[in-house]
Amino acid sequence: MSRRFRIVVEYDGTDFSGWQRQENQRTIQETLESAIREMVGETVFVRGAGRTDAGVHADGQVATFDLEANIPPHGLLRGLNSILPADLAIVDVAEAAPDFDARFSARGKIYRYTVWNHFVRSPRLARTSWHVRQPLDTDAIRRSAAVLIGEHDFHAFRASDCDRKTTSRIVRRLEVERQGPLMTIDVEATAFLKNMVRIFVGTLVDIGRGRIAEDAPARMLANGDRSMGGMTAPPGGLTLLRVIY
Amino acid sequence: MSRRFRIVVEYDGTDFSGWQRQENQRTIQETLESAIREMVGETVFVRGAGRTDAGVHADGQVATFDLEANIPPHGLLRGLNSILPADLAIVDVAEAAPDFDARFSARGKIYRYTVWNHFVRSPRLARTSWHVRQPLDTDAIRRSAAVLIGEHDFHAFRASDCDRKTTSRIVRRLEVERQGPLMTIDVEATAFLKNMVRIFVGTLVDIGRGRIAEDAPARMLANGDRSMGGMTAPPGGLTLLRVIY
Repeated sequence: MSRRFRIVVEYDGTDFSGWQRQENQRTIQETLESAIREMVGETVFVRGAGRTDAGVHADGQVATFDLEANIPPHGLLRGLNSILPADLAIVDVAEAAPDFDARFSARGKIYRYTVWNHFVRSPRLARTSWHVRQPLDTDAIRRSAAVLIGEHDFHAFRASDCDRKTTSRIVRRLEVERQGPLMTIDVEATAFLKNMVRIFVGTLVDIGRGRIAEDAPARMLANGDRSMGGMTAPPGGLTLLRVIY
Repeated sequence: MSRRFRIVVEYDGTDFSGWQRQENQRTIQETLESAIREMVGETVFVRGAGRTDAGVHADGQVATFDLEANIPPHGLLRGLNSILPADLAIVDVAEAAPDFDARFSARGKIYRYTVWNHFVRSPRLARTSWHVRQPLDTDAIRRSAAVLIGEHDFHAFRASDCDRKTTSRIVRRLEVERQGPLMTIDVEATAFLKNMVRIFVGTLVDIGRGRIAEDAPARMLANGDRSMGGMTAPPGGLTLLRVIY
């Protein structure tokens, strides 16, 4: 009888082509599956809570896989981390119920987007933030962001190739913090559409630098028109902080 | 008549072979000199306050160079940063007096060493910290570190190939901070011997994990014996924070 394992995964996504396995690409999923095969000798499917895009990071991605081998969780943690590359690690392993599903059991997720808002870019933060040179009006960003909280149809805030049938989601929290040049935008929601956080951030940043009107998010929610928003913020500023069960 | 410029430089040192120009190596100095030649058309010598080793980072390295061209500092800042790679930037440019010397005018420097002290390594901090798995006794580290503050002969705390004639230095400050698994050790001194901070940290960490006695730093100061200390901590955890003039 196989046992299900639940793992928490941390990665610097810069040099990965995202979560999902693709032919001839270095992906998180493939790297984890290879390490498990190397250590345990079993070919498994690692199922992630969120399929992060190329360049997106994670502090607390969650995933599951099933093993026949009888290996204690701590042994898996130590063994797999000794095989995995420097930019990927498993920070927790636990046994899970057989019906636990990393994706569908999730009640929510928290993402953080980091903006380096200074006229000079920061080499030390180049891999993990978006450099925006123009001064941003934090108050305008906070005012505009407020309308995104709550249950809404986020049709205007998704990638054109997003294939989800329903576009209604509940944003539980959207917090804009600023310390000097460093701005972070934390978003907690029940679930996310493809590129949803990055379109939130691209739109809010364009409001902050005066390129689009403060009421753009409200109008986008009302009429579902993606073209009224800002750019899709680049992936390197985004981190999946936590999956809530 | 040429003018002297003083620049403040930030870099992620991971993919550089240190500050100093070397044949067929990617170094900070060479990358800066090439960018200046490309922008201004002059071949200059960029003189740094500290020749950081391969893998060592900087938030506030200081350097100088002389130009014939009459270019305003802000123009140099913008132009050079558009040429420099993502892991290196000039964060400030100012004109300096002709006798200002980045190295000999310095009254002190501040380095920070970062240790990730947790049984699992952190991919997000892999480039900028030293992963130490064994639990560290922060109080023991603080007690042992205290004797290093002040004016001492730091003969026992330098690389075997360090060629400085005098080995007496004044450590003005040595602070050990801890937030969860993240430990930082800040050291301010008038000047540093080669690998001095990294030998401080390697020795303190070995005290913190119980490998060597708490009185090792005091005995090393007294008898000048490097072999009583710990390992030389790896370069990736070290950052030159600031040069004081």
